Amino acid sequence: MDHIAEIIAVGTELLLGNTVNTDARDVSLLLSELGINVFFHTVVGDNPERLKQAVEIAKGRADIIITTGGLGPTYDDLTKQTLAEAFGKKLIFREDVAEKLRAYFEKRLHNMKMTDNNLQQAEFPEGCTILENEVGTAPGCAFESGGKHVIMLPGPPRECRSMLKTGVAPYLKKLSGSEIHSHNVHIFGMGESAVEDKLRGLMEGLSNPTLAPYAKTGEVMLRLTAMAGSLDEAEKLMAPVLAQVRETLGDIIYGIDTDSLENTVFMLLAERGLTLATAESCTGGLLAKRLTDIPGSSQVFLGGVVAYSIESKTALLGVDPGLIHDKGAVSREVALAMADGAREKFRSDMGIGITGIAGPGGDGSDNEPGTIYVALTTKDQSHCKVTVPFRDRERNRIAGASNALDMIRRLLTQLTVDT
Amino acid sequence: MDHIAEIIAVGTELLLGNTVNTDARDVSLLLSELGINVFFHTVVGDNPERLKQAVEIAKGRADIIITTGGLGPTYDDLTKQTLAEAFGKKLIFREDVAEKLRAYFEKRLHNMKMTDNNLQQAEFPEGCTILENEVGTAPGCAFESGGKHVIMLPGPPRECRSMLKTGVAPYLKKLSGSEIHSHNVHIFGMGESAVEDKLRGLMEGLSNPTLAPYAKTGEVMLRLTAMAGSLDEAEKLMAPVLAQVRETLGDIIYGIDTDSLENTVFMLLAERGLTLATAESCTGGLLAKRLTDIPGSSQVFLGGVVAYSIESKTALLGVDPGLIHDKGAVSREVALAMADGAREKFRSDMGIGITGIAGPGGDGSDNEPGTIYVALTTKDQSHCKVTVPFRDRERNRIAGASNALDMIRRLLTQLTVDT
Repeated sequence: MDHIAEIIAVGTELLLGNTVNTDARDVSLLLSELGINVFFHTVVGDNPERLKQAVEIAKGRADIIITTGGLGPTYDDLTKQTLAEAFGKKLIFREDVAEKLRAYFEKRLHNMKMTDNNLQQAEFPEGCTILENEVGTAPGCAFESGGKHVIMLPGPPRECRSMLKTGVAPYLKKLSGSEIHSHNVHIFGMGESAVEDKLRGLMEGLSNPTLAPYAKTGEVMLRLTAMAGSLDEAEKLMAPVLAQVRETLGDIIYGIDTDSLENTVFMLLAERGLTLATAESCTGGLLAKRLTDIPGSSQVFLGGVVAYSIESKTALLGVDPGLIHDKGAVSREVALAMADGAREKFRSDMGIGITGIAGPGGDGSDNEPGTIYVALTTKDQSHCKVTVPFRDRERNRIAGASNALDMIRRLLTQLTVDT
Repeated sequence: MDHIAEIIAVGTELLLGNTVNTDARDVSLLLSELGINVFFHTVVGDNPERLKQAVEIAKGRADIIITTGGLGPTYDDLTKQTLAEAFGKKLIFREDVAEKLRAYFEKRLHNMKMTDNNLQQAEFPEGCTILENEVGTAPGCAFESGGKHVIMLPGPPRECRSMLKTGVAPYLKKLSGSEIHSHNVHIFGMGESAVEDKLRGLMEGLSNPTLAPYAKTGEVMLRLTAMAGSLDEAEKLMAPVLAQVRETLGDIIYGIDTDSLENTVFMLLAERGLTLATAESCTGGLLAKRLTDIPGSSQVFLGGVVAYSIESKTALLGVDPGLIHDKGAVSREVALAMADGAREKFRSDMGIGITGIAGPGGDGSDNEPGTIYVALTTKDQSHCKVTVPFRDRERNRIAGASNALDMIRRLLTQLTVDT
């Protein structure tokens, strides 16, 4: 049976524009992976009358109603009460949930007193399945009534996301009688529309598994999703498609089911016991920041210099002032000298040098804004790549840092670096 | 008359979870500033039947309907057609809009051919007001029909935001017969709930102007909004409240109607002709990155060192290895020595040194994760501040960088630095 779901987010803060409805996005992503149709999202305030109205409308056009928000301990958290009423269910006090709440308060929030309000979180529609909240206090729940399924989730995005994974996905999989598995293919070096063009034929012919592209800043991700009776079956469905994607896209795929480009580079360096240092001009520390986002990055990343002024390129990185004068601060030669300087100063195996014009203004030279030279050197290799098209300051800086990471990846996996 | 607005976002990508509905947030923020009630948001796909259904429901419970999305040139952009039909209006070809579209394509997109599809964007409901799109191609529009107001905006967030400011705000102000003006008060050094506690009495007594807090990462913003017949009147309403806010919060206010902490520091340094250099350990380049987010920052920011390893603190910043051995890499003394090192190496007026434990793991010492020493030195002053409570790696790093910026601000405006 084809299910139709509707998502109702409850919270006045959404209607005031104080927060953005990321919960609806997160729920939708799961539903779309599960092949469940979503035709409407609704947002309603902490108002029982209007929530009831939204629920009545949803009942008329969907068979799965998923609410987010309004499960907390305060007086305006009325979701459970309103939904129970709308489906003719009584709220009952669940001693098992109350016990867990008491334990949570004792262990995790030792300096906070549990109030009677908090116990309101232990009231649930009769006969429902409790969905554990592993990262907060308010549990969610799910029940079935007259062929309609109701699922209530907490509003805080972290709690909602966690419960989607641990409670909702299994519940909905049981409903649809099959399992969903997916692989994420991470791509750097080609835009979303170009990736789509290359894969259009393949994508259009698919129904299970499905293949869909998602644009991330400066990158593209493909999600391959299969629905099957078991993990094995799902993998069997996905394997030939994954092979075709690999064949079509080749080495612009930097990872499958990985975290990020910086994490891929971190793992490659760590596996080989190699170290890295950076010298950044126009990216101004963004590359170092991204590398040090990773806990434990000090194992491979020794440090960097943000050489924003010409003097600092000379004083801290030992770049020959004559070279800067002859070739210009934004040049292949200076990028390479900066990479060498970083490598020597930090005594690392690899050095990165980035110099360019982040924009929007130019630097008085012939170089267009957006021109960024990215150099990678080791004891016996030197590579340099230049990016040109101007987008905006932020995207140019991300492109500079990402290109540096991708060059390291390519060098360490024996691919052509100077593409 | 009290208006009630409803926001309908059109786009299948929202229902699939590919994008998050930031447009609804942006429209809601404006409406809330204008004192217009919003009771529901709806999201619907690129499907004329279901869009019509959503519009019929909205007609029954709101007098202002604002749509976002579905104004583009492709076959699934059906918003104008559907809304015109729902309100009994014909679509007519607007030669004035077509002329502008042609000019836009010639000037801005010189390598793109304008197709007939693009001319579809020149069709509009009869008698409507065109809302210019200053950052894209698809214009918006607004019309009135039987006491109901319909406003259609483009989906791309940048275009939607721009049109809210240039077209929608004036249109709605005329509707409500009054003008809205606001001030944003930027705060660093106190959490949202503490700020709310301090201002609760003041906030609760207000109706015009209104005062509302918004949490930003590591900061708090207060928005003060007045509705009045003129800018002068609005300012008169806001002045006493602003004075009270200033008196209550004092020097934790770092700016009013400013951009960011880094921008405030950039302006303060630029006005005084002073320069800055940074030495970062646990923040790993985040401070340098934030400073160089600002175009033209090279005027005051000479550069920085990301000294992630102990060796690099010595080799690049000249920190005494004996000091690191005696006091530990995460210590007040080393932070101060790093600040001095940055100042000397880059020959800047001010130096920042940051050393700490971003977490989640510790460094084997007695220091708890979250401990970050932030030092600021000049030729004749030395200051150091320590932050401790562990939040998460990302927030700790932001806190370290923001504290450094705030210390510079405090020093340059003659406030106590070592709070």
